[in-house]
Amino acid sequence: MSTTGRPLHLHEDRLFPSDPTQRAIARRLYSQVEGLPIISPHGHTDPAWFAGNASFANATELLLVPDHYVFRMLYSQGIGLDALGIPRADGSRAAVDPREAWRLFARNFHLFRGTPSSLWLNHVFHEVFGLRVRLDAGTADHYYDTITAALQDEAFRPRALFERFDIEVIATTEGPLDPLVHHQAIRDSGWKGKVVTAYRPDEVVDPEHEAFAAALERFGAITGEDVYSWDGYLRAHRNRRAFFRSLGATSTDHGHESALTADLSRAEAERLFAKILKGGFSREEAALFRGQVLTEMAAMSLDDGLVMQLHPGCYRNHNPLLFARHGRNVGADLPLATDYVHALKPLLDRFGNEPGFTFILFTLDESTYSRELGPMAGHYPCLYLGPAWWFHDSPEGMWRFREQTLSTAGFYNTVGFNDDTRAFLSIPARHDVARRIDCAVLAKLVAEHRMEEDEAAEVVRDLAYRLPKEAYRL
Amino acid sequence: MSTTGRPLHLHEDRLFPSDPTQRAIARRLYSQVEGLPIISPHGHTDPAWFAGNASFANATELLLVPDHYVFRMLYSQGIGLDALGIPRADGSRAAVDPREAWRLFARNFHLFRGTPSSLWLNHVFHEVFGLRVRLDAGTADHYYDTITAALQDEAFRPRALFERFDIEVIATTEGPLDPLVHHQAIRDSGWKGKVVTAYRPDEVVDPEHEAFAAALERFGAITGEDVYSWDGYLRAHRNRRAFFRSLGATSTDHGHESALTADLSRAEAERLFAKILKGGFSREEAALFRGQVLTEMAAMSLDDGLVMQLHPGCYRNHNPLLFARHGRNVGADLPLATDYVHALKPLLDRFGNEPGFTFILFTLDESTYSRELGPMAGHYPCLYLGPAWWFHDSPEGMWRFREQTLSTAGFYNTVGFNDDTRAFLSIPARHDVARRIDCAVLAKLVAEHRMEEDEAAEVVRDLAYRLPKEAYRL
Amino acid sequence: MSTTGRPLHLHEDRLFPSDPTQRAIARRLYSQVEGLPIISPHGHTDPAWFAGNASFANATELLLVPDHYVFRMLYSQGIGLDALGIPRADGSRAAVDPREAWRLFARNFHLFRGTPSSLWLNHVFHEVFGLRVRLDAGTADHYYDTITAALQDEAFRPRALFERFDIEVIATTEGPLDPLVHHQAIRDSGWKGKVVTAYRPDEVVDPEHEAFAAALERFGAITGEDVYSWDGYLRAHRNRRAFFRSLGATSTDHGHESALTADLSRAEAERLFAKILKGGFSREEAALFRGQVLTEMAAMSLDDGLVMQLHPGCYRNHNPLLFARHGRNVGADLPLATDYVHALKPLLDRFGNEPGFTFILFTLDESTYSRELGPMAGHYPCLYLGPAWWFHDSPEGMWRFREQTLSTAGFYNTVGFNDDTRAFLSIPARHDVARRIDCAVLAKLVAEHRMEEDEAAEVVRDLAYRLPKEAYRL
Repeated sequence: MSTTGRPLHLHEDRLFPSDPTQRAIARRLYSQVEGLPIISPHGHTDPAWFAGNASFANATELLLVPDHYVFRMLYSQGIGLDALGIPRADGSRAAVDPREAWRLFARNFHLFRGTPSSLWLNHVFHEVFGLRVRLDAGTADHYYDTITAALQDEAFRPRALFERFDIEVIATTEGPLDPLVHHQAIRDSGWKGKVVTAYRPDEVVDPEHEAFAAALERFGAITGEDVYSWDGYLRAHRNRRAFFRSLGATSTDHGHESALTADLSRAEAERLFAKILKGGFSREEAALFRGQVLTEMAAMSLDDGLVMQLHPGCYRNHNPLLFARHGRNVGADLPLATDYVHALKPLLDRFGNEPGFTFILFTLDESTYSRELGPMAGHYPCLYLGPAWWFHDSPEGMWRFREQTLSTAGFYNTVGFNDDTRAFLSIPARHDVARRIDCAVLAKLVAEHRMEEDEAAEVVRDLAYRLPKEAYRL
Repeated sequence: MSTTGRPLHLHEDRLFPSDPTQRAIARRLYSQVEGLPIISPHGHTDPAWFAGNASFANATELLLVPDHYVFRMLYSQGIGLDALGIPRADGSRAAVDPREAWRLFARNFHLFRGTPSSLWLNHVFHEVFGLRVRLDAGTADHYYDTITAALQDEAFRPRALFERFDIEVIATTEGPLDPLVHHQAIRDSGWKGKVVTAYRPDEVVDPEHEAFAAALERFGAITGEDVYSWDGYLRAHRNRRAFFRSLGATSTDHGHESALTADLSRAEAERLFAKILKGGFSREEAALFRGQVLTEMAAMSLDDGLVMQLHPGCYRNHNPLLFARHGRNVGADLPLATDYVHALKPLLDRFGNEPGFTFILFTLDESTYSRELGPMAGHYPCLYLGPAWWFHDSPEGMWRFREQTLSTAGFYNTVGFNDDTRAFLSIPARHDVARRIDCAVLAKLVAEHRMEEDEAAEVVRDLAYRLPKEAYRL
Repeated sequence: MSTTGRPLHLHEDRLFPSDPTQRAIARRLYSQVEGLPIISPHGHTDPAWFAGNASFANATELLLVPDHYVFRMLYSQGIGLDALGIPRADGSRAAVDPREAWRLFARNFHLFRGTPSSLWLNHVFHEVFGLRVRLDAGTADHYYDTITAALQDEAFRPRALFERFDIEVIATTEGPLDPLVHHQAIRDSGWKGKVVTAYRPDEVVDPEHEAFAAALERFGAITGEDVYSWDGYLRAHRNRRAFFRSLGATSTDHGHESALTADLSRAEAERLFAKILKGGFSREEAALFRGQVLTEMAAMSLDDGLVMQLHPGCYRNHNPLLFARHGRNVGADLPLATDYVHALKPLLDRFGNEPGFTFILFTLDESTYSRELGPMAGHYPCLYLGPAWWFHDSPEGMWRFREQTLSTAGFYNTVGFNDDTRAFLSIPARHDVARRIDCAVLAKLVAEHRMEEDEAAEVVRDLAYRLPKEAYRL
């Protein structure tokens, strides 16, 4: 086992422009936000971690297995998911020594050069685990042992890390059938960490989801509503939203294939719902149903104040072989060209001008930044832009987001950063990247005399803290 | 009333790269174009200003009410248009003290940080009104009083400003029903300022325009043609184009939802026109009609030499509530994904290779810069690219325009800058931004040894003066 | 004849960022790759040049007539193709003195400022011909005479240039009907230069190609297969692929209007083929046929190991007047918006996870870089991204390619540079531009502390040499 290797640096000026004028400004701006607590209004950490506060098992289980950014890249170069110990669709796992999986990852770590994964992972290695050599074939065991050993320490349990990371509040995401027992347990435990849920009803909203029928039945059982009538179905949503709010939820989250919304008459909606329930509906009818539910969700948000988030434009499970073997969320989702201007009109026609309604849009189609999303957010009072998301959650993606939305939406129709991650340890790294890029963007504006530095300092503080907190009502 | 506040700077190097090598080159290039007169070949100033030469009323009427870039951003943050005194659809206005509207604007001026509006407005504040503190809540009244007082001065009347701004020629835009009395009055007055019109026939070309029927009737009355026959309708256009030319017009301007063109046989065109007149046409038929008229306009341009401009890809009046309350042009228009390669083919098949035909294209869909517009302008003799337009008329938008069209269209298939504005006072600011960005773009090319500085100097002069003047035949 | 003029420089730091930190890193990285031999895995040079080794005729024939990048730009400014001596569709040529054509080009060389053509041409002028004054009207004859005289020299014959350019291997592209006599002659000659072919079967795959019927008949005659049966048609492909492999081919190349693929049953494919043969098929059926053949090509690649390349998204011969006068490949092709996520699914469903299958994708629609191609290449084991191509083969295009694919595909799902050119003399210039831009991209990453310089050095060497060689199995 080697503990020597090429040195691992985490440069204090990383991600800042190398132009000395811009870098100096970026440093000063960053000093304004470096120490601010983390607001994490949208993510996918497991509340069980914070409820149970058990130790993480080992390096592979913590850093490799849950991170589809990482194993999709390995897969793209011919490394099978079984060799990495990724769970199969049936819940089983290949008999893989986690150390061997880690070695495989380490040997291929060069694949991540220039990607955000390398930024995040090196940050975790350096800052959380104190590693000072780079990960490669020669240091794989040193890494595996160092990380796995550290995880047994009390200081590396979820709550201790939560506090060490200075997380002021984190939102998880749960489906409407979730009993939220972990959130309840966190509350009951007396621990001061603020962990809230978010309402993500896709499985009872998407008739094309393989679990729709079963989920709907359970939806009825949990809520005591007749979810096979349109009114009862809507009441069931209201019921669960209220329950989610009682455990801290301030937002809903909707992941649809398109941004289509609808505003059907009550009779039309009832007819459509009946057809959906009966089966034999077309792809268009399924989309229309999802779109109608989005508009209903907006109506409910006007009543209960939940902030609404829409993440459209993803082709889920594009690779049928991998879906059959390993199920969902294994890195085989792909972005789609997405229209917002036509698709959102029905919803906006009804609620676009309503005071108190907050509707946060995300995209995987960057061509919409300057063409649709910026101009829309720069007009409609309800609309805000979520940050560069998923495939675009990179330094380059963040630059493009700012440079392509700034002129039409400004900074104040955006809501700061979302880490959107289940990779808990990377949360500080991800927020740090976002803060640094925003400082770099602003430094350029100041260096080119488009803004004064005192204004830029206010903007970076707003982006890092005030705007996400206010937009998500946290 | 406070006259103290944070200092307002207008840095001499604004918008230039901060890299010292590039900045030094940009400065030298800018010295070549800084003093050139303004060619404004496409805009929306009111010819009545130059005909009547009356004073502007106050800061709010001059700078806030006519500028939908400004009030759309305020609206996006929940500020009602009535509170800003924006006229309603019925012509009435809320009883708002213009000073209060100005204060509301001033309190929210931070929303514009990083946007082109802040660049333009600060330029106007500093250069036209001599203000030296920044606009905010504390300086709102100082601004209002300073600007409103200045406007009473002879030196701030439209003609004086026109001369002060060193405008060599400005084109306004009028509909075919306009009697052009203001242009006639300007000619008759003996004033030397060159103000020409442009022919924008949308209201008699778009069957979906709410005023189409009435406009068509008036079109017939004015021209004495039977505009309910296809031939007569075309003759009426020729008639008005000749009249517009007699008052200086060198161009036509067409704002369509798509770039669709058509090349129907005479019999087909007659049948389509009959259906349009009868009503009950489909959306596709309306689009086809507009497309056919575009091709007819090109045919007329071959005869009368008017340069043709097409601005497609805008969803007008997206917000029905706002349209009902405040009508058109209140910041609720949105860009659309736009195809040119298929859409323009019918017109280009007929006229694309004709000597003497000039067809200038604009876009709101930046994904077309490198994919369609650059390659098309780099092939068809008739095609030229208008500058980054409307939502993309920002420093970032101008950089993207150049960086995404340069390799395929070069500089010489573009036509320099259009301010496209009704915000008269901002015209020097806008041209200054465009000149600075072109100098910055060229400075980068020179600094990276892709062009010699003497060549770049020629290019920036061409972009600022020669190309717009020649392309628009001014 | 003037031999004086403005000096022509080829700066040693061209294309490197002017920021001193980045430039210094870029220089060091470039020193790693500057001297590497050229791997040219995809291009359109004429194998007859290397077989016959005859001298090129004159400057115009060598540099102007074959280069549609050049004459399309001249055409866009109203210069007719006859005036340049571009061959007509019937094979005739206008009676144009090549010197006069060259003068016309020289007078308009300013049109290319900022374009890649000016980079490549100035490189050729300076490095290959030793010219030290810039090309313009005054130096046109000096250029013409210098170049034309040099071409008579032994050192300027194709094989000598091939060796001087340090080309390790070059692939040409031939249709399936080509007897490959030049490749055979090269082999037989004993010359050590490695020139291989590539299999590009478009003319027997595209039922909308004007030569399809005749090509198909010849395809049958050459292979001795019954190409009017689906099985025989496929066997004919296998037959020719084997022949191409025997003359060095390691790849196939497919230029389709869209990326559509299909996976029909055998019976469906037979029915479709019968309809195609019978004629009267629809545009959709033609596209489906091309898509089915693509999937069959993938199946064959699994067997014979040929690397598969797809170049979709081009509207060929957009200008009918020019097509009638001058035929194909005269600069009138245009990019199209292109979908990959849906279009490639049938092929990927079958072969996307197959070990040993290499499928290289190109695009003319840059909006797909971050939305589709990067995410797809970062997942599917078979997929690799070809470089910025054709209209996007510029410094800016290469930057966009890297910045928009890096976060999702990394560097190692790309295959280095393709020159894709028939402009033989420009090959070193083109590879040099690509190497410089990759060094600049990496220098920025290093300067912003996202990668260590030793890692960047490895990446630039991989991009310049190892990756294209391995991906194309050369």
